[in-house]
Amino acid sequence: MLPNRNRKLRVIPLGGIREIGKNLTVFETDSDMIIVDCGVAFPDLDMPGVDAVIPDMTYLTENKQKIRGLFLTHGHEDHIGAIPYLFKEINVPIYGTKFTLGLVEKKLEEEGMSTSGIEMIEMHYGEMVIKGDFCVEFIRTNHSIVDSAALAIITPCGIILHTGDFKVDYTPIEGQPIDLMRMAELGEKGVLLLMSDSTNAEHRGFTMSERTVGRTFEEIFARTKGRIIVATFSSNVSRVQQIINTAVKFGRKCVICGRSMVNVIDVAIEKGYITDTDVLIDLEEIDNYPPEELVIITTGSQGEPLSALTRMAVATHRQIDIVPGDTVIISASPIPGNEKPIARMIDELCKRGATVIHKSLAEVHVSGHACEEELKLIQTIVKPKFFCPVHGEYRHLMRHKNIAVELGIPEENCFILENGRVLEFEGESVRCDEMVQAGNVLIDGLGVGDVGSIVLRDRKHLAEDGLIAVVMTVDSRTGALMAGPDVISRGFVYMRESEDIIEHIKETARDALSRGDIYGGKRDWAYKKTVIRDAIHDYVYEQTKRNPMVLPVIMDIALGENQNNQADLEE
Amino acid sequence: MLPNRNRKLRVIPLGGIREIGKNLTVFETDSDMIIVDCGVAFPDLDMPGVDAVIPDMTYLTENKQKIRGLFLTHGHEDHIGAIPYLFKEINVPIYGTKFTLGLVEKKLEEEGMSTSGIEMIEMHYGEMVIKGDFCVEFIRTNHSIVDSAALAIITPCGIILHTGDFKVDYTPIEGQPIDLMRMAELGEKGVLLLMSDSTNAEHRGFTMSERTVGRTFEEIFARTKGRIIVATFSSNVSRVQQIINTAVKFGRKCVICGRSMVNVIDVAIEKGYITDTDVLIDLEEIDNYPPEELVIITTGSQGEPLSALTRMAVATHRQIDIVPGDTVIISASPIPGNEKPIARMIDELCKRGATVIHKSLAEVHVSGHACEEELKLIQTIVKPKFFCPVHGEYRHLMRHKNIAVELGIPEENCFILENGRVLEFEGESVRCDEMVQAGNVLIDGLGVGDVGSIVLRDRKHLAEDGLIAVVMTVDSRTGALMAGPDVISRGFVYMRESEDIIEHIKETARDALSRGDIYGGKRDWAYKKTVIRDAIHDYVYEQTKRNPMVLPVIMDIALGENQNNQADLEE
Repeated sequence: MLPNRNRKLRVIPLGGIREIGKNLTVFETDSDMIIVDCGVAFPDLDMPGVDAVIPDMTYLTENKQKIRGLFLTHGHEDHIGAIPYLFKEINVPIYGTKFTLGLVEKKLEEEGMSTSGIEMIEMHYGEMVIKGDFCVEFIRTNHSIVDSAALAIITPCGIILHTGDFKVDYTPIEGQPIDLMRMAELGEKGVLLLMSDSTNAEHRGFTMSERTVGRTFEEIFARTKGRIIVATFSSNVSRVQQIINTAVKFGRKCVICGRSMVNVIDVAIEKGYITDTDVLIDLEEIDNYPPEELVIITTGSQGEPLSALTRMAVATHRQIDIVPGDTVIISASPIPGNEKPIARMIDELCKRGATVIHKSLAEVHVSGHACEEELKLIQTIVKPKFFCPVHGEYRHLMRHKNIAVELGIPEENCFILENGRVLEFEGESVRCDEMVQAGNVLIDGLGVGDVGSIVLRDRKHLAEDGLIAVVMTVDSRTGALMAGPDVISRGFVYMRESEDIIEHIKETARDALSRGDIYGGKRDWAYKKTVIRDAIHDYVYEQTKRNPMVLPVIMDIALGENQNNQADLEE
Repeated sequence: MLPNRNRKLRVIPLGGIREIGKNLTVFETDSDMIIVDCGVAFPDLDMPGVDAVIPDMTYLTENKQKIRGLFLTHGHEDHIGAIPYLFKEINVPIYGTKFTLGLVEKKLEEEGMSTSGIEMIEMHYGEMVIKGDFCVEFIRTNHSIVDSAALAIITPCGIILHTGDFKVDYTPIEGQPIDLMRMAELGEKGVLLLMSDSTNAEHRGFTMSERTVGRTFEEIFARTKGRIIVATFSSNVSRVQQIINTAVKFGRKCVICGRSMVNVIDVAIEKGYITDTDVLIDLEEIDNYPPEELVIITTGSQGEPLSALTRMAVATHRQIDIVPGDTVIISASPIPGNEKPIARMIDELCKRGATVIHKSLAEVHVSGHACEEELKLIQTIVKPKFFCPVHGEYRHLMRHKNIAVELGIPEENCFILENGRVLEFEGESVRCDEMVQAGNVLIDGLGVGDVGSIVLRDRKHLAEDGLIAVVMTVDSRTGALMAGPDVISRGFVYMRESEDIIEHIKETARDALSRGDIYGGKRDWAYKKTVIRDAIHDYVYEQTKRNPMVLPVIMDIALGENQNNQADLEE
């Protein structure tokens, strides 16, 4: 499999580099393009009101005639969540394992998109598919979701191994251990480029097997008398299977609770990934069983405000009340940023009398990502010529690169990319200087991309100190004040108790209006508004050391003229 | 020391229970009252724009003639930070150890308050002071700040031991190990009530000695060629001392960087808690030394946006640029809620070429709070009759209570209090049914308590989806629209690209204004505004699935009348 010296290969991440989320990578030759994964990211703390973030897909829509297929490594949201947005623009065959495609179908249905016109091709481990210049093979891996795959992408320039998200689990619950043999075989043939999961690169040692969590469940179930409630990620089918296994062993029935948990487990049952389903009962049946015969498997491990477990914690869940004697197991780690909501939820559960067991109290969770020693294992058997750490924030990628360098890969053969950066192979040479359009597209409600930096800046400003709107109606000929100033404030101070400051703001506005070039021929409303804004801002800051947003509105009336306040649109 | 059967004792936490922060506890008899600690809390994520939170001090100001003194366990912000606010209302003697009082003085000076009129009494370990019905003894403890103390409070009803924040460190850097002997002696005499730090009650085992961090520093310094930057909590004087010790050993000079670090270390040097100060150089001198001879000790371990280290990370620090070869040690744990800003700061440091060593990579931090086995030790030697876990969220208090019950304290003798709850002893009996006023007072700029739930609700609403203000001038006699509707929006959509939706909002406003009882004799502006608000809200939600705040403003003019829009003030 000698590389063709005349052919070019471009590897372009459009998401997932220097961040954990919205994974999307493009592989491109002169004639063909394939996409690996198409995910969403959680909005950051400084994106208030934003529901999700997807990759900028301009480069894909501009090249839609070249795209031969979308290849999915696994079914997590950060790998499949943006598919509905992509498929509003393009339609290409989707390749994935059975469970992954099951989740994609469910997702498209939920978005109200017809799946009948989309070609979905189920791939088995070891199978290859040829699409234009590319031949893609699915290789078994282990991860916190079943049916995950690494992809071997045979290109005109050589073999690329993309690990997807993975860990090395010698005793997985579902299926077999990761196919290290195939990876070693590819290594022997010669791998041009390894792209490998960096999430846990800063964690030393090995990630424990999923099976270890089952042992903890057994210990907890053995000593627990009352009802057991287990919260975990809905996509972690093996975790749910282990809860079911333990329930069977201790003679308990299981209830599946929470929309996404129900959805995913439906797919898992339909596709045959959950066994012992006869212990599953409907939520409506729980009153037929005593607490000691029940396990509730639920969403809400991240303290999400609307999740089933949070609703139970704050007593707004319609069917389930937390009562003394309940044992709640949080079988998950906090995703960074969720620590506070999770802590608050646990507190509420405790206040209602529940015993809460979380990760710092017992081994009720293991990661789905490889730690340092597993990363070294992959490097060692794959022996790539070039290396791109992927799926991590900058420090994870850096650490992963350092691990590779320690193992003997020359530093100049390691590339810490960024989203939009083109890694281009041509014969023996490689370069990395071109950029294509890439970035964050924010989803807010139905809006895709209409929330940008100015809107976010305003939201943050409003959140910090609220706003003061000052409204005046002015005679456009004389500049005389005809009505107002009216002051409306929200999020600044409680107005009923701040009449003094409001009166002063009105006075300040009146003064500012009468200052400057007011009675001249020029009706420079924009200028007047600036004077008013600055005067009010200064007064309020001096009085309160706060910076509310000040919005002066001047309506001018004369001769029936109806001036639309365009100046306000110009900022 | 038999309890006086006729005397009552009331123990009232006004802060610090079911939360970590704003510690303040009142001990009260019929004639006297003392206060232990007076701290601030960090604002929660759902308090945008709030700078700090202090306890509601109404109960103190209402009883100011009874207060005999303020006793401080140590100098952390959550124990002394609210003193300036309390001392605007009352003036009582302050009792504390040398370093604690040094920090209080600095704090009052920074707030521009004169300390000359405040009596500050320096206490040594083992010393007692009698104030009215109370005799208070300071007992040596270990914590992440020097000069921390537990308080033995001898009351008419018996001895109360308040641990303050503590850990058991057999090899502390400054001073001696915690005075377990004195605690055991009190235990022998008979302790009525133990109030003990619950922060780490969920952590098994023992907290490691501060000294272990020094060993890690030595390893890192030994292998590091370039400049070393260490970020830690400014109040952790022993940590700073260990950095200085290691610098001395490896022939490096130390620079103190960041306002609070400079302030605290000034106090520490002045009071004699820092030795080897001759290796300290001024920030201005750093250019005189090569990188391998420098250590910068800085604030910013929590990724605070304005801290010195964050400013270095984003290249806005005036004197220090991060360059390749720098090694940054984050010698701290994330305070819950700070994980994301810290991660982002580390990423920025890495991008500039620094090697960043944080807690998951090396033992560069130990906690200042006792873990489960240390808590058991204290319970065992103090053998209290009653027990109140303090300094923790609900689950920490609950876990701490369970530890005490496992050790044999009857469950009915354990009290998980809440802020404002009165624990009342009278002879042999105890009850816990009364409440006094307590709660959060929010500090925003100069405002103390003027930001309440309505203002916060509005800020959160504005942050989520922004606002749309619709302004109209109307003839008050005819109801005819004279100017507008003008639409001003912030934080909703980028208006220049949303002219369609803005036009529709104007139309909706016009329609809504002309609907209802518009041309009748009744000029019910409040009603009309409700109609306009609802119509715009419905239209916008249908179009965008967003809920911006809608603010309709109607100015009515007629006969020169200048109606102030009072209706807006009524919400």
